[in-house]
Amino acid sequence: MSTKASNTTAPTQFLQAGNERYAFRRFGSGPGRPLLCLQHFTGTLDNWDPAVTDPLASGREVILFESAGLGRSSGKVPASIAGMAAHALAFVQGLDIASCDVLGFSLGGMVAQQMALDSPSIFRRMVLAGNAPRGGEDIMHLEKPSLARYLQDPTLKGYAVLQKLFFAPTASSQAAGEAFIGRLVERKGDREPLSGPEVAGAQIAAFREWEQFTSPRFGDLRRIQQPTLVLNGIHDDMIPVSNSYRLSENLPNAVLLTYPDSGHGSLFQFHESFTRQVAAFLASDSPSAAY
Amino acid sequence: MSTKASNTTAPTQFLQAGNERYAFRRFGSGPGRPLLCLQHFTGTLDNWDPAVTDPLASGREVILFESAGLGRSSGKVPASIAGMAAHALAFVQGLDIASCDVLGFSLGGMVAQQMALDSPSIFRRMVLAGNAPRGGEDIMHLEKPSLARYLQDPTLKGYAVLQKLFFAPTASSQAAGEAFIGRLVERKGDREPLSGPEVAGAQIAAFREWEQFTSPRFGDLRRIQQPTLVLNGIHDDMIPVSNSYRLSENLPNAVLLTYPDSGHGSLFQFHESFTRQVAAFLASDSPSAAY
Repeated sequence: MSTKASNTTAPTQFLQAGNERYAFRRFGSGPGRPLLCLQHFTGTLDNWDPAVTDPLASGREVILFESAGLGRSSGKVPASIAGMAAHALAFVQGLDIASCDVLGFSLGGMVAQQMALDSPSIFRRMVLAGNAPRGGEDIMHLEKPSLARYLQDPTLKGYAVLQKLFFAPTASSQAAGEAFIGRLVERKGDREPLSGPEVAGAQIAAFREWEQFTSPRFGDLRRIQQPTLVLNGIHDDMIPVSNSYRLSENLPNAVLLTYPDSGHGSLFQFHESFTRQVAAFLASDSPSAAY
Repeated sequence: MSTKASNTTAPTQFLQAGNERYAFRRFGSGPGRPLLCLQHFTGTLDNWDPAVTDPLASGREVILFESAGLGRSSGKVPASIAGMAAHALAFVQGLDIASCDVLGFSLGGMVAQQMALDSPSIFRRMVLAGNAPRGGEDIMHLEKPSLARYLQDPTLKGYAVLQKLFFAPTASSQAAGEAFIGRLVERKGDREPLSGPEVAGAQIAAFREWEQFTSPRFGDLRRIQQPTLVLNGIHDDMIPVSNSYRLSENLPNAVLLTYPDSGHGSLFQFHESFTRQVAAFLASDSPSAAY
């Protein structure tokens, strides 16, 4: 096994915390706080692109978390973001980490927001990619025709669907998607079982609950004081960029960065830029999110 | 005089090009293309914050341009962005510069967009701060109450009005505004005459013309191929951030960066971040705007 800190080779570990046994991977080192990585809809530890995790692991420990009911973690997927946040908080406390940084992608970013509300001191800095606030709009409506056409296409199988869903319908974005898929399959053994319809159903229910809000809309965001970097592909059809606009308008201390020619997977498409920007953001000690 | 390349000390120069004699300043050196800086509503050469221009001048020549009818430049302020773009193009050609980078702030960014449409090879990379596309909304409506209250307040004089208009109504943003004003008055001699009502009137007419559009709205932007960095303060009341959203959604190759707790003058408020980000963007040779 390579000694390079990488999600391609890091062994899957397990932690008993509360009532569950969580799968996770932990690799890398450096002066930064540990970076907790929270995953997208149906994604497992194997869905973290090494081109994103590995460069970040050169400056800090990267900790990939598998929530309850996914992969080899025990338990059941909660039907709410709050339920998922409780699992992630139990895991971080189980690791005896008092404060860390967080990278939440898509569903994982919603979990990160809820964690910051439930436990205000748990995060130092937050990175929210392809995300939406509570009360956001058009969050993961897989039934809409522009997404359903890929999910219902019998000629697309496995990762080929992910490539269509995560990347924009341009030659350049699809080529980046193909490279992304190639990186995901580099890990040869010790892989997680794929998510089934039960996982998807509970997570979709959580998205629907997350779309609900009480007045004032986006009011919760004022309570998230952490410097936050919000990132989004400009042509994201799974969680439209307008949701990232609302995040950066209502979070008191957020920088927004959007990428051109890209969809939900813009962080994977522009992994060199993304890891450079995130590393610079995390390296900052400023009270402001501006970096 | 200091030998440091700075807008505080750089002498004002003059160039005869076409029918006009343009005032400008040129300072700095380095491996980058020259950076043409195009100024905001009623602003002269003296309104360029040395905290923005000087760090950028350490990697390239910075060229500050005074358009016709402003400061000591001859001629009349055109009542259209197209007219201003013609002056700027004549100036760049008069300097014998075949291609450069551009930083356009507010009105200056509209001029930069028009120049890119009229002369597609003139710019290598574009930075558009506090900007709006043709057909944008709520562009510099100084008559609206939220802005008029400062312009009509008899207790606010000179730069104090600018501080209120350019910075958000928070203690932190207003403190940054005070520091900004302090930097603007560091230049002691060789200053430009202030703009009068004739300048303001013609520029406001140009904003009103820029709000007009023919279908498809924002269609012109598809023709601007340059990698572009779009920046905006999230609480900009002079040119709302929605205009920067439309720019980054419709320009084929643009990254958007927004700053928290700031208004129209976010680039001056976060000058350290801004110059770091702009320098990184300009240093990139990638065909993509992602940097």
